[in-house]
Amino acid sequence: MQAQVLNAYMRRALELAARARGKTFPNPLVGAVVVKNGHVVGEGFHHKAGAPHAEVLALKEASGKARGAALFCTFEPCFHFGRTAPCVDAVISSGIREVYIGSKDPNPLTCGKSIRLLRRRGIRVAVGIMKKEVFRLNEPFFCAMRRQRPLVTLKVAASLDGKIATRSGRSQWITSRAARRHAHNMRKYYDAIMVGIGTVLKDDPGLEAGGGHRLTKIVVDSSLRLPLSARLLKTRQPVVVATATHNKVKEKALLMRGVKVLHTKRNSGGVDLADLLRRLHAMDIRHLLVEGGAALTGAFLDARLADKIVFYWAPLIIGGRQALGALGGRGVDTPQKAVSLKRMTMERIGRDFLIEGELVYS
Amino acid sequence: MQAQVLNAYMRRALELAARARGKTFPNPLVGAVVVKNGHVVGEGFHHKAGAPHAEVLALKEASGKARGAALFCTFEPCFHFGRTAPCVDAVISSGIREVYIGSKDPNPLTCGKSIRLLRRRGIRVAVGIMKKEVFRLNEPFFCAMRRQRPLVTLKVAASLDGKIATRSGRSQWITSRAARRHAHNMRKYYDAIMVGIGTVLKDDPGLEAGGGHRLTKIVVDSSLRLPLSARLLKTRQPVVVATATHNKVKEKALLMRGVKVLHTKRNSGGVDLADLLRRLHAMDIRHLLVEGGAALTGAFLDARLADKIVFYWAPLIIGGRQALGALGGRGVDTPQKAVSLKRMTMERIGRDFLIEGELVYS
Repeated sequence: MQAQVLNAYMRRALELAARARGKTFPNPLVGAVVVKNGHVVGEGFHHKAGAPHAEVLALKEASGKARGAALFCTFEPCFHFGRTAPCVDAVISSGIREVYIGSKDPNPLTCGKSIRLLRRRGIRVAVGIMKKEVFRLNEPFFCAMRRQRPLVTLKVAASLDGKIATRSGRSQWITSRAARRHAHNMRKYYDAIMVGIGTVLKDDPGLEAGGGHRLTKIVVDSSLRLPLSARLLKTRQPVVVATATHNKVKEKALLMRGVKVLHTKRNSGGVDLADLLRRLHAMDIRHLLVEGGAALTGAFLDARLADKIVFYWAPLIIGGRQALGALGGRGVDTPQKAVSLKRMTMERIGRDFLIEGELVYS
Repeated sequence: MQAQVLNAYMRRALELAARARGKTFPNPLVGAVVVKNGHVVGEGFHHKAGAPHAEVLALKEASGKARGAALFCTFEPCFHFGRTAPCVDAVISSGIREVYIGSKDPNPLTCGKSIRLLRRRGIRVAVGIMKKEVFRLNEPFFCAMRRQRPLVTLKVAASLDGKIATRSGRSQWITSRAARRHAHNMRKYYDAIMVGIGTVLKDDPGLEAGGGHRLTKIVVDSSLRLPLSARLLKTRQPVVVATATHNKVKEKALLMRGVKVLHTKRNSGGVDLADLLRRLHAMDIRHLLVEGGAALTGAFLDARLADKIVFYWAPLIIGGRQALGALGGRGVDTPQKAVSLKRMTMERIGRDFLIEGELVYS
């Protein structure tokens, strides 16, 4: 098949995969298409963790037509027994003759093993079709496999002059209702949301994603100051409190409310964020949204642990030397060391702007 | 003539007027076109203060063909003797039959008088053709006539998080070379540039516009700390130091270097900016560019004396609680009182963005 044709089928598999965006954590987004004599005879995508894999669904739809057909799948079929049987066996027994794969599975349990097995069984395998697109669709998963930590996205909402509150501490609202609604809707693409204890004490946010989306709420609370009456505790979602303190009474009270208390290493700022991310990875958390406040967001930047930023930006001027800036922490020493944005996009949302980009540390 | 046709000729007059942008201070930008039987027979624009007016140049080019023709001029022809004879007399004696005027001259020396005189002489006069465009081209002049002060534009260059320096005070450079060059080129559209004494002491800027453009340099220096060695004094351009202090020795030394010392009223912040603007108006200054620092820019916003903003915005993150924000001063108390931007435009300049807008105080 020509590269153009291969790309077209792989693009279809990517489209299918993307339908489950935000729903497959901790698994990646995977789509598959079975093609026979130029016709699509089976399609599938992974709907959620525990549900059948994309390849199995596509082969099932193709049924007998799979014999002698080509399979396009965004990820290498899995090799291991997890909650479902290995897909690679299903592919082999279906009689598929050619397999086109977007990306090798970075999961060490599979990583290349299925490809080798398929080839040993006489199936033609091509790997790397639209690899970049597959990577971008699954950045949290690749980050987890390569760096053993969740992908971290910072969310910031500020005025033209970079303020998130006025001199008197008022922050409601700097961005418009449309921007706030947009930000709220984006939560469904993450499996965890994080705030600092300062934000909880000041704003008492609920941190819900809506629509029953499972979103682990994480509070960075070095000294265990979280009030038992906090709104974010009134929820069916998992709550994690990360702390660098031991306080048996408070911990027990939190446990009684179903809160998981994570003890992390301590650094000068309290909770050591690198250690916290390792522990969250061990809990299978893949994509973390850090919603502030300024101190926590700044600490992630200082530690070079933030991967992306979504910046809601209101064309307003707050002014004031005392007004709180969007990013606290220590910051850089010279402009040359500033954190820059790669693959930046800008879009208008109502009166405001949304700027997104990957963070590049110098 | 149809509205469309009238607008087309007036647009031509506006184009001519705009050719002298930045060069006619303290006068407005004026263009004129003479039209006979559907043909343009004369064109002119005001090149600089002291030079002939647009109408006179257009009539001169039209010569004998002006008799019975229509004159389009962006401004009402002047009525008074200034450095040149009144244009209204030239219009009458040329035999022009119809006059189409963009805007009444807001200058009280003319304001409507020429229109009445033309009509008394039997000439048909229509006023208000593309009035908004004429106003926008001449905002500094309208501001001067209506509010007895220069139009004030703030120039700010900051990072995504609103910083103009790092935690250690380093500010060179946050914006790219392309953005800095753009900002420098824009100075030629102003007749005065202003900085606070803090900026002089820290950066020692030259504040030149280049190309021999006359640009009055103004330093707001409440306590007369301006060093006699300051780079901005090594210039042929006029220099004004605005102060709220009396210091005979220092004032004499400044006078010896050709510096004009302006004593203003004093307020809690030192120099009273409203009083200073009145004094600059009396010196025929029309369009003032305030280039910082943060304290001065913030003071203009606090006093609601800034009309426009040009914001060079670098997609970089500086971070740091201690890093200097773009706007100092007191700032607003609630987000509802934030200063908003009207008629905002955004344009990409190299790696950076330029955001311009009119400031609206709530």
